[in-house]
Amino acid sequence: MEKQDQLLMKKQNKNLVLEIIKNQSPISRMEIAKITGMSPTSITRIVNELHLQGFVKETELVTSGVGRKAVLLDVCDDVFFTIGVEIDKFIIKIGIVNYVGEIVELRRIPRLESESYFETLEKVNMNLKELIEKNRIPHQRIIGIGVGLPGFIDNQNGVVKVSDQLKWKNVNLAEDLKQLTAFEVMIDNELKMKIVAEDFKGSAKNSHHAVLVGIGSGIGSAMILNGEIYRGDSNNAGEIGHTVINPTGNVCNCGKIGCLATYISEGAIVGDARKVKEIDSILDVFEAYRNGESWAHNLMDRTTTYIALAVSNILCLYNPEMIILSGDTIERLPEIKQPIEQKCDLYIWEPLKERVKIVYSQLGEHGVVLGAAIQIQNLLLDLE
Amino acid sequence: MEKQDQLLMKKQNKNLVLEIIKNQSPISRMEIAKITGMSPTSITRIVNELHLQGFVKETELVTSGVGRKAVLLDVCDDVFFTIGVEIDKFIIKIGIVNYVGEIVELRRIPRLESESYFETLEKVNMNLKELIEKNRIPHQRIIGIGVGLPGFIDNQNGVVKVSDQLKWKNVNLAEDLKQLTAFEVMIDNELKMKIVAEDFKGSAKNSHHAVLVGIGSGIGSAMILNGEIYRGDSNNAGEIGHTVINPTGNVCNCGKIGCLATYISEGAIVGDARKVKEIDSILDVFEAYRNGESWAHNLMDRTTTYIALAVSNILCLYNPEMIILSGDTIERLPEIKQPIEQKCDLYIWEPLKERVKIVYSQLGEHGVVLGAAIQIQNLLLDLE
Repeated sequence: MEKQDQLLMKKQNKNLVLEIIKNQSPISRMEIAKITGMSPTSITRIVNELHLQGFVKETELVTSGVGRKAVLLDVCDDVFFTIGVEIDKFIIKIGIVNYVGEIVELRRIPRLESESYFETLEKVNMNLKELIEKNRIPHQRIIGIGVGLPGFIDNQNGVVKVSDQLKWKNVNLAEDLKQLTAFEVMIDNELKMKIVAEDFKGSAKNSHHAVLVGIGSGIGSAMILNGEIYRGDSNNAGEIGHTVINPTGNVCNCGKIGCLATYISEGAIVGDARKVKEIDSILDVFEAYRNGESWAHNLMDRTTTYIALAVSNILCLYNPEMIILSGDTIERLPEIKQPIEQKCDLYIWEPLKERVKIVYSQLGEHGVVLGAAIQIQNLLLDLE
Repeated sequence: MEKQDQLLMKKQNKNLVLEIIKNQSPISRMEIAKITGMSPTSITRIVNELHLQGFVKETELVTSGVGRKAVLLDVCDDVFFTIGVEIDKFIIKIGIVNYVGEIVELRRIPRLESESYFETLEKVNMNLKELIEKNRIPHQRIIGIGVGLPGFIDNQNGVVKVSDQLKWKNVNLAEDLKQLTAFEVMIDNELKMKIVAEDFKGSAKNSHHAVLVGIGSGIGSAMILNGEIYRGDSNNAGEIGHTVINPTGNVCNCGKIGCLATYISEGAIVGDARKVKEIDSILDVFEAYRNGESWAHNLMDRTTTYIALAVSNILCLYNPEMIILSGDTIERLPEIKQPIEQKCDLYIWEPLKERVKIVYSQLGEHGVVLGAAIQIQNLLLDLE
């Protein structure tokens, strides 16, 4: 066997052992040997290395049964940290996330629509430096920044191709933020980061095929297929907002007629609401709905119909185990969950109905920050 | 390193070497060593084993340049054969396919709509035995039968859950055909087999993300994502025929309103045509179209519009490198290719337009048979 192969296998084994300690701690060396099929000698060697590198610590515990003390292993959750950032039209969120995926602190900063690209970046930089200092985290323990934002994101090259919501086009966000902060930076579409978080500790945990739908100012989806984020050819997979669902319907700003987004996005609902009543924002529509005003019920009835049709279409095409509904509209007006579920029950194709689960996001507004932080950890933290 | 790991690596290396000879023959031992990074001694050992097992033969050729003779390697295309079978409403196709994916002989047998399940199976058995005998193929060289058919197929358990077209429900096709023929049998959805063939030697060759759309008596799609058939949770991924594309439109036999199939399937076109004129089959519609009858042009205009909308929706959701259009409707009325392409140009979302390729099936009516034969080879022929 070649030396190169041996090194690769050694590295894989080390990552495997660390993964097991991370997910199943506290755990004994003997149990790890059983799970992996590796020899106790190999396990002891690997654990010693991980201990020296600061990833693993020992915790002494009394085992149940005969009462003998056994040394168990646990990960050190402060060995490394990553920063998760969400940039949206009106808000920036920054979170410090530790090695086991817990948010140490999350900060919300308002963003102005008039704000320039570099003003936003400067805001991110200033706030994350303050956060790091406040939490007294040594710089060398921070391995990088993950950013989630709406739009067509070239994650490979760190370029925002187009973000209609932020009004950014062809900006080198990863490079620019790296220059400013001196940390490694990865950027990706916000919904893809959200499903990474749901996969890590939310609704999609242990799911092989899951689709997350985001319903708010923008309409989109992201998916885990065969256990991995599915991106398609240019990281655009999941653009459900621009699927045509009514070819004789509303005109969409993309130039097509009848796109889903023209029926269920916040902007579309507000636009139609203003044909009836002077309102400021979507919140006024929700208030009118709660007050029983019929026009608001008609509008939201159409919205829930199109959401359920979208769920049904996603199900036909991706045949996932679960569909996770998320986004501002559902979070702010949870009353629409019931009609959505009733309509899903009417529309979903019979042979698929019994198996699929329609659920809601568990991580709510933390999802993008957490997912982005986990994603950059996954990308950079491959042990040698 | 554990002994088990060594054995696994040995097996992987052997399969890798065979794969390289199969795809890049004629090729020298030295070139294989270069590509794999393995030592010339290892390559010689592996090639000797493959030679003994009958997979590989030597061909002596004069190399270009200095004129020295070099011994090159090639696969033996008759070392193993598989049988591909397509069962459709009115036709059964059976093909013998050799080790390198060439169809040795393909036979078409008419199927009656009134035919029972076991009558069809008996027909398959009788004809494939005749074919094998006629081509003098020793039984021990046939490793199995792959069957592609329309419907909801549980490929894991070899069960046809529902096939509306064949009127079969919950039949153990794999098991029953194995009993009858004494060969190993694998069954799968016809479009999934078709894209396996396109991936092997047709339009999708070298593509990582490709979607094949089938337009004929049924409407469906199949996809290769990240280089593999994507099945979803229960092998139903790609059911585009039942995606809703017009929620105030036609009633579908699935109980929903406005499914794509109600606009572009043969049955739907024929049903609407009969509102205008007494016709026998879809062929009469095509003839009227060629004769310039306006009703037929109106109908096919609507059909091409909905086909292009479906292409646009698939593109938004899967973001593939290519979409392969296939099926009877396009094969029998190729005149509609031009309007489909024109409408795709109007509907496809601008940022995706430049990269995606809209192409047609290259394997035509051989696709399902070839794909099923290749699939069973891939499943069973993993060397020890």
